[in-house]
Amino acid sequence: MGTTQLESVPEPKYWHLKTVIGEALDSDFTVGEILPNERALAARFGVARATLRQALEQLELEGRLQRRRGVGTTVAPPRMGVDVSTSTHSWPGAPGDAWQPVDCRAAAAPAAVVRALDVDGDEDVHTVRRILVTHGQPVAAELLYIPSGSVPELSAIDAPSGVARARSVLRELQHRLLDGQDRAVELGSARADDAKELDRLPGAPVLVVTTRYYTEGRAAAVSVATYRADTCRLTFGASGDVEIRHDAQARRAS
Amino acid sequence: MGTTQLESVPEPKYWHLKTVIGEALDSDFTVGEILPNERALAARFGVARATLRQALEQLELEGRLQRRRGVGTTVAPPRMGVDVSTSTHSWPGAPGDAWQPVDCRAAAAPAAVVRALDVDGDEDVHTVRRILVTHGQPVAAELLYIPSGSVPELSAIDAPSGVARARSVLRELQHRLLDGQDRAVELGSARADDAKELDRLPGAPVLVVTTRYYTEGRAAAVSVATYRADTCRLTFGASGDVEIRHDAQARRAS
Repeated sequence: MGTTQLESVPEPKYWHLKTVIGEALDSDFTVGEILPNERALAARFGVARATLRQALEQLELEGRLQRRRGVGTTVAPPRMGVDVSTSTHSWPGAPGDAWQPVDCRAAAAPAAVVRALDVDGDEDVHTVRRILVTHGQPVAAELLYIPSGSVPELSAIDAPSGVARARSVLRELQHRLLDGQDRAVELGSARADDAKELDRLPGAPVLVVTTRYYTEGRAAAVSVATYRADTCRLTFGASGDVEIRHDAQARRAS
Repeated sequence: MGTTQLESVPEPKYWHLKTVIGEALDSDFTVGEILPNERALAARFGVARATLRQALEQLELEGRLQRRRGVGTTVAPPRMGVDVSTSTHSWPGAPGDAWQPVDCRAAAAPAAVVRALDVDGDEDVHTVRRILVTHGQPVAAELLYIPSGSVPELSAIDAPSGVARARSVLRELQHRLLDGQDRAVELGSARADDAKELDRLPGAPVLVVTTRYYTEGRAAAVSVATYRADTCRLTFGASGDVEIRHDAQARRAS
């Protein structure tokens, strides 16, 4: 990793340090390798530990480093491309859907979800919790809100809660015609429950994907899915006649 | 904002504090209002300033607060929905494109861009810099990489650089048939040059949207666009026959 001393530069010191370490990661380290500890790194680059920490935080934000509890800081593999294009999606729970239901409750939906669904505040909303696991790694956690009006034939008798209930709700949803969906992506921080599913600390940066599913001119369901921002790159497929290559190269382009 | 003392809770203290302050923002503050200073807030909630700062950082990440140099911490307006769906896009610079070209250089493209474009390392690549401004606010900054092979009829004589050059390059691009595009979104941190355009500090979290434009079976251009993560929500339009409402409600749903 060299012993380059940082010269005086107009940009913040940690910023220049970030570039220097980033280049070292490319040339001297392999994916999965554990970085020397902060004290050693700070000494090597001739910077204060606070400066080093800022640079490492930036590299973590950019997906170059991962901090793992009990392991230390490791060189991150390229981010995984996760397809979230609306064109390839159908109702949640349709055949081929990779999301796994883990629970279902009849909890009160947050006010914003109630507004997005355009239902009365007192209408029951089924809250299905699902997770998405790829190559054995948790990728995303979802809360899927389905007002009881969207699944009117759901029987209240069998499977009042849990995974079985989740499956029943999703199955009923398939009986309706999906007219369309819209989707938005924004930055968020992991709620405690999502963080646990995603093996992250609460507050970790996440990409929040909100989807509204429409049937008969109204929103029939709202999904709020939380993707790990450190390991995921959300891909939106292709318009037109092209082959999409899901590779890592776009990462470095930023 | 009340004088609630924080009770002992299993989750991190700043996390609970974040929720308490978030509720206060909803009930007691209006958009644009300046928050009391850190010392006053810490005293009011009976927490250490380090804890307070962590909670404020989380709220900033979630788009609830904005820190503005020389102003202080203010209550953020709902995030703007910015349409980045591939369905509505054509070549960069086509009529109706809201991006403004600001510069064009024949710089060496980063290695990753060279790979994404599938060109030789020594082929000239035009780098067009563009910005997107909405309601007077900078929303995104872009570097658009166009190999000279994609614009073979571009004259080298007039407008060798700057905005005029950028326009020439984009105009030449329109002569080719756009076969399709693919797009990916990931978390990044603002480079110094982007940060300046976006009125942010270097390293601020940004949403990086990478787009490849295809013509005749190969990538003819690559765009790396950096959106402000604090003020933007990227929307991916609708599949199917639905009206999209660009509103703020999805924000709170997270």
